Amino acid sequence: MKEIAPGFLDVVRARRSIREFLPDPVPEEAIAQLLEAASLAPSSCNRQPWRFVLVRDRAVLERMGAAVKKRFDELRAAIPAGELTEEMEMFRVFFSFFETAPLVVVACYREMPDLLARIVARAAGPAVSTTEKIHPELQSLSLAVMSLVLAATNLGLATSVTTGPLIAKDELKEIVGLSRHWEIATVAPVGFARGAPGERPKRKDLGQIVSFL
Amino acid sequence: MKEIAPGFLDVVRARRSIREFLPDPVPEEAIAQLLEAASLAPSSCNRQPWRFVLVRDRAVLERMGAAVKKRFDELRAAIPAGELTEEMEMFRVFFSFFETAPLVVVACYREMPDLLARIVARAAGPAVSTTEKIHPELQSLSLAVMSLVLAATNLGLATSVTTGPLIAKDELKEIVGLSRHWEIATVAPVGFARGAPGERPKRKDLGQIVSFL
Repeated sequence: MKEIAPGFLDVVRARRSIREFLPDPVPEEAIAQLLEAASLAPSSCNRQPWRFVLVRDRAVLERMGAAVKKRFDELRAAIPAGELTEEMEMFRVFFSFFETAPLVVVACYREMPDLLARIVARAAGPAVSTTEKIHPELQSLSLAVMSLVLAATNLGLATSVTTGPLIAKDELKEIVGLSRHWEIATVAPVGFARGAPGERPKRKDLGQIVSFL
Repeated sequence: MKEIAPGFLDVVRARRSIREFLPDPVPEEAIAQLLEAASLAPSSCNRQPWRFVLVRDRAVLERMGAAVKKRFDELRAAIPAGELTEEMEMFRVFFSFFETAPLVVVACYREMPDLLARIVARAAGPAVSTTEKIHPELQSLSLAVMSLVLAATNLGLATSVTTGPLIAKDELKEIVGLSRHWEIATVAPVGFARGAPGERPKRKDLGQIVSFL
């Protein structure tokens, strides 16, 4: 089959979750490509229920990192000594490493009213449900995030997609200036990798994740 | 900047949500690429909380389509005559067109216990929350779905990512044989497009979706 971009799968294979970054800034032309890739993702009813806050200001990143570390320490202190405190220390880095990247994408979504569900509920009462919450807006945003991540990888940029920082979600919302209508889904640092990544974490065999009918 | 796959952004730009498919089957080597692309997506703690049911059996697709149409008719009947029934008829096709594709990917995820939240709650009670539910598993699955969709686009295949069929989520789960631990997040038809797509639905200006700090 003819490929639009020969080597596309090499981009997918090159993507790794990177947690250590050089201080070098992300070039402007790369940022433009990342944003184009995100904005062209499909979304539920083409509502594009997403916002991307791109943070490069070192002082803002430090405030974000400090908020996450403070919350981490509060959670750690809430756990009785000896119970998993060592494990928590091991995981500490996963919560706040994002702040060391030269660019952090704070990816946000906004839930929209489910109009069909509302109409049906108003007419027939809750007995006739449409479907349980399927979070189409969150799904749409995640599609856009992956588009952005692969566009970054294509340009030799390192990324990761992290939810750990959201232990301090309310604080982060305030620092980046989000109104209450928006939720942060993920925090994605972007930059040039410091050093080569280790071995890829093992993937499940396809037999475990795929079935055919 | 040097690209791993020159033309990567052309894949992103070529992706459109397609709802009419030729009957031609999706080649096996394409399916292999789609699944590799999905399986290499990042996931929360590398848990890979996803399953993909690939449906090609026409009889199964017809059962799925029939279940969605039946549910659609039930919802439509629950709404008093005159109130939005015309609009609902307009939208009917969006719920069940998936069954006309030669391949339908039923993308599923499984929510995992939030261990940190459990430890903290057990130690300190609900007063110390970790974070509201951020659905990391659903996000992980959606990242994998976008990787699959772009891999398909790269090979000239048409896709769409749809949640409409989930009005019949329980019925679909039973038809494709999912256990209760798994949820369907989206139903993605894949095939060769019948005809060229129309104009791309308008995207928001970047100024509406991006801010810099």
